[in-house]
Amino acid sequence: MLKNDLILKAARGENTERIPVWLMRQAGRILPEYRYVRNNVAGFKELVKNPELICEVTLQPVDILDVDAAIIFSDILVIPEAMGLNYEMIESKGPFFPETIKSQQDVDKLSIDVVAQLHYVFDSIKLTKNALNNRVPLIGFAGAPWTIFSYMIEGKGSKTFSNAKKMLYTNPELAHQLLQKITSSTIAYLQEQIKCGADIVQVFDSWAGVLSKAQYLEFALPYMQQICDAIKDVPVILFAKDAHYILNEFNETNCSVIGLDWTIEPQKARSEAPTKTLQGNLDPCVLYADKSNIKKETEKMLQAFGSQKYICNLGHGVYPDVDFEKAKYFIEVVKNFKTDN
Amino acid sequence: MLKNDLILKAARGENTERIPVWLMRQAGRILPEYRYVRNNVAGFKELVKNPELICEVTLQPVDILDVDAAIIFSDILVIPEAMGLNYEMIESKGPFFPETIKSQQDVDKLSIDVVAQLHYVFDSIKLTKNALNNRVPLIGFAGAPWTIFSYMIEGKGSKTFSNAKKMLYTNPELAHQLLQKITSSTIAYLQEQIKCGADIVQVFDSWAGVLSKAQYLEFALPYMQQICDAIKDVPVILFAKDAHYILNEFNETNCSVIGLDWTIEPQKARSEAPTKTLQGNLDPCVLYADKSNIKKETEKMLQAFGSQKYICNLGHGVYPDVDFEKAKYFIEVVKNFKTDN
Repeated sequence: MLKNDLILKAARGENTERIPVWLMRQAGRILPEYRYVRNNVAGFKELVKNPELICEVTLQPVDILDVDAAIIFSDILVIPEAMGLNYEMIESKGPFFPETIKSQQDVDKLSIDVVAQLHYVFDSIKLTKNALNNRVPLIGFAGAPWTIFSYMIEGKGSKTFSNAKKMLYTNPELAHQLLQKITSSTIAYLQEQIKCGADIVQVFDSWAGVLSKAQYLEFALPYMQQICDAIKDVPVILFAKDAHYILNEFNETNCSVIGLDWTIEPQKARSEAPTKTLQGNLDPCVLYADKSNIKKETEKMLQAFGSQKYICNLGHGVYPDVDFEKAKYFIEVVKNFKTDN
Repeated sequence: MLKNDLILKAARGENTERIPVWLMRQAGRILPEYRYVRNNVAGFKELVKNPELICEVTLQPVDILDVDAAIIFSDILVIPEAMGLNYEMIESKGPFFPETIKSQQDVDKLSIDVVAQLHYVFDSIKLTKNALNNRVPLIGFAGAPWTIFSYMIEGKGSKTFSNAKKMLYTNPELAHQLLQKITSSTIAYLQEQIKCGADIVQVFDSWAGVLSKAQYLEFALPYMQQICDAIKDVPVILFAKDAHYILNEFNETNCSVIGLDWTIEPQKARSEAPTKTLQGNLDPCVLYADKSNIKKETEKMLQAFGSQKYICNLGHGVYPDVDFEKAKYFIEVVKNFKTDN
């Protein structure tokens, strides 16, 4: 029924006639049409809770950039909020949690019945799915349990997330309890996204890179596995930024796709995760270059990944100061590319 | 002549009767005695330019923590300042450059005759070397050219250093000119540190991790190699944080030691850099744990690296809120450890 299901075919390991492509953070940030919408609401969170506007900004990159998928515009931090931990989005600074999780009591107070509170996301998905009219798949998403945990303990962005990591070393039992609650909430959240129309889901482990491999194996991977095991109806993409050491282990999960940041060589990823479809991984800064260099860098990457079991993307979200014409050109280059293999 | 030259022996690949240990950022940060000194000067930069106080804070960890080396207390950003680009150190925020490098003219204006302007570092080294009275070696250091470049373009700390990276993609020739000027200054700076008494030097590539391997090979490694080739009289330690992809290439340089962050498995490092001495790499957050867990995690690491061609350290600078008694205990554990191999 989908007119363009290239991303789903690639995710399932089926042959695709050309390489599919989308951009992390394609909805928002670089599009003037997004900024217009954003400037006409009181704040970021008002936008995230407005299904009509979400639908509008989610469709913008499909119309303007001609990407092969839409990704629902939302925020990974809706989960802690639905669990009972409110946050503010502070302009040009990022998220801030007035209260953070410190004790057993704090963890006990958190709810895992998040679905009812996240109706605005599900309404947005239904509306968007309808408006997309089967042009391209709709991607749902959530933050990975470790990343959500990091924010709930640290209370804001951090270079080291040393407070969050401190709990792993000083109170691992409590850390596991909180991670489990986040995981249960996230599974329910993703399952409801799928029920409402998400064709594929991505789990973003944005702060994976602050963990050692041993800590990732103990405090992050088991929860990623639970999510992969619970989502049976659509493909799951796992993206653990800067966790260069985890490809072998991700290859053993039930995920369909592994997202890669730009520090991972395509050959290394192919050899360490041979059974999975790979996604990524152009350095977002390549989009600052002129068109001939964008073409050169992109084609070098496409050639290295090959045309099958591959979804083209950046290695992280597109940076806010990138000219959207450059992003559009990148998409064109991918669509016009013919690999040798 | 040195009473304890374990670190130098390990760096040269010679047998050591026990594993030597020091801490990145051991001078400053966690010691109450440091904070006392720091609170009695107007600012961080006043401290950095005061040889008597530098000598005092450089010796503190040798006296208090009983580490196997002193590292001169200073700042990597004295190099851009000596080249003509001033910076401010803003309390609890970090460095800020009122002017940044944007054009050919900006690069042309920079001086590479930095030695005369850095007399306060050299005076500090002479004073400290004398005060150390040959108890342990004195480590000199500098920022890696890529990391210094990042600050000179970006003007402050950044999660992505996207402005600095932008120049690599939009004006690589100018980037190389600036990197070469930084490298020439850094070599002169390190050579003078050695002349004044530094027994070994470390080059800190703190922002290596924002580069892809291809970019590191083009814009960082050649300058690291120049430094290694120019420093002939003492061992050189290369530490490129988060550059997990570069161990094979560092193994081919003339460095003596490769520093590792905590995301690198000891076995992987041994196999990819078999000819070098390795340094690192305990997760700094382990020092938040109780003593029994500090011992367990430290001994697991020591066992994995083995007793030879190894200098124990954290995988990054010690975090400011670590209890110095825990750091002291970590040092004790290393000194008392007997490996099986």
